[in-house]
Amino acid sequence: MSKSWNRRDLMKVIGGVAGTSAAGALLAHATAGQAQTNPAPSMRKVPWPYSPLDPDPVAQRSFESYYKFRCMYGAFESIVGTTAEKLGAPYTDFPFELFKFGEGGINGWGTICGAISGCAAAFCVLSPKPDVLIDTLFSWYETEPLPNVRPKGSKFPEVRVVAGSPLCHQSLSRWSKASKKKIYSDERSERCASITASAVHKSILLLNEQAKGTVLPAVVLPGKTPGCMTCHEKGGVLENTRGKQECGVCHTALPASHPKKL
Amino acid sequence: MSKSWNRRDLMKVIGGVAGTSAAGALLAHATAGQAQTNPAPSMRKVPWPYSPLDPDPVAQRSFESYYKFRCMYGAFESIVGTTAEKLGAPYTDFPFELFKFGEGGINGWGTICGAISGCAAAFCVLSPKPDVLIDTLFSWYETEPLPNVRPKGSKFPEVRVVAGSPLCHQSLSRWSKASKKKIYSDERSERCASITASAVHKSILLLNEQAKGTVLPAVVLPGKTPGCMTCHEKGGVLENTRGKQECGVCHTALPASHPKKL
Repeated sequence: MSKSWNRRDLMKVIGGVAGTSAAGALLAHATAGQAQTNPAPSMRKVPWPYSPLDPDPVAQRSFESYYKFRCMYGAFESIVGTTAEKLGAPYTDFPFELFKFGEGGINGWGTICGAISGCAAAFCVLSPKPDVLIDTLFSWYETEPLPNVRPKGSKFPEVRVVAGSPLCHQSLSRWSKASKKKIYSDERSERCASITASAVHKSILLLNEQAKGTVLPAVVLPGKTPGCMTCHEKGGVLENTRGKQECGVCHTALPASHPKKL
Repeated sequence: MSKSWNRRDLMKVIGGVAGTSAAGALLAHATAGQAQTNPAPSMRKVPWPYSPLDPDPVAQRSFESYYKFRCMYGAFESIVGTTAEKLGAPYTDFPFELFKFGEGGINGWGTICGAISGCAAAFCVLSPKPDVLIDTLFSWYETEPLPNVRPKGSKFPEVRVVAGSPLCHQSLSRWSKASKKKIYSDERSERCASITASAVHKSILLLNEQAKGTVLPAVVLPGKTPGCMTCHEKGGVLENTRGKQECGVCHTALPASHPKKL
């Protein structure tokens, strides 16, 4: 048995089950009869379309998102969420909350800083060439006195430190030593929210540069690291490790058996 | 001007723009007249519905996915992708490829191992209580001789090592020392693909246990770490750092100024 549907019936049915935006998109396709030539957009394929953003409001949004699910969520949600809202459905249906896993170097383990890992994930959603963006951001984070953005709503004096590493554990320890504040203090939370805003601000500038067609230079490894890499990294006689961060920050002393002092 | 639509028109239009599964779902809702009571599923809210999985095929899938976009992608795609296929659209539209950012400790930086960070992200998509799953997996990875899964298609002899850390850099260096193989060798790629399969196998067991209602025990920190934490972590007199990994693996010697030997 067949039921007849008019335009209003169709709008009501699709709107009820798929939400207003999706209904509008479906109906636009349906009534224009372009189903075969204009497939519905899907969020599955990366990179998503990216249009340059103003870094200031996105950084401010990340500061506020930090207080919801912390650093990695704050960084990813502000960059990709702002873009998703410009693109509309289905991009806005991305499950942003999953990135709470990166908090405190992944659930408090102190490994990778969630501010920069959230930006790295965002680069893979929005950039056709995320590798150079990740390297540039991580190198900047390792060597720059941060935070260098002071969001609206900040309450405590800013204490800038050079993390010397992309790892949460080291970044926090250096800040605690410089600020004389405790790790589970409100001051430290605000510092990490501001670090998130700083990383997001830098990331938007990098995304915008790349979108303009600027070819970003390859990152130069810091300190004595290029010397270490000559033997220990790809193509070296040992080739027995992998990494891009400054070796000397953790390997503070060479073992007595090391063949030469760098 | 109004156009009339019959059931076949409606199926064709929705199928053309939204894909067969989505069309079926929409039409089921439409023809049953349940638009108000059964909203269309959205992937936005986590956790997604999880049904226990067989760990063996998911681990095998992760081994194969590793060779597409490496460790973090392989881990996440195998666990969440298998679940998404059981759930259907829109879950299958998730942009899995974004997780290529975690390769080699995030684009070769040697920070967090992508096999376990991919599982951590998957826990946040599929579990109502991901924290204990992350801690259990990371602690297991730090202390267990791995890989302990040998996927079909493996070509090289297996060399098991205890990573001693959740970091890629250290895990690879220990394996290179034990295997006498180079870091950019085919043997090392296979080793990381097998590590991914091992972490995924363990993760599925943990997810299944939690889905059954088992309360997983809190993780006990390894070695002398609990002693270190007494002063340096939350509530300690110093409270000047944060982390859960074994301190002594990196901090091999205490400074002369340290008040007591542990």
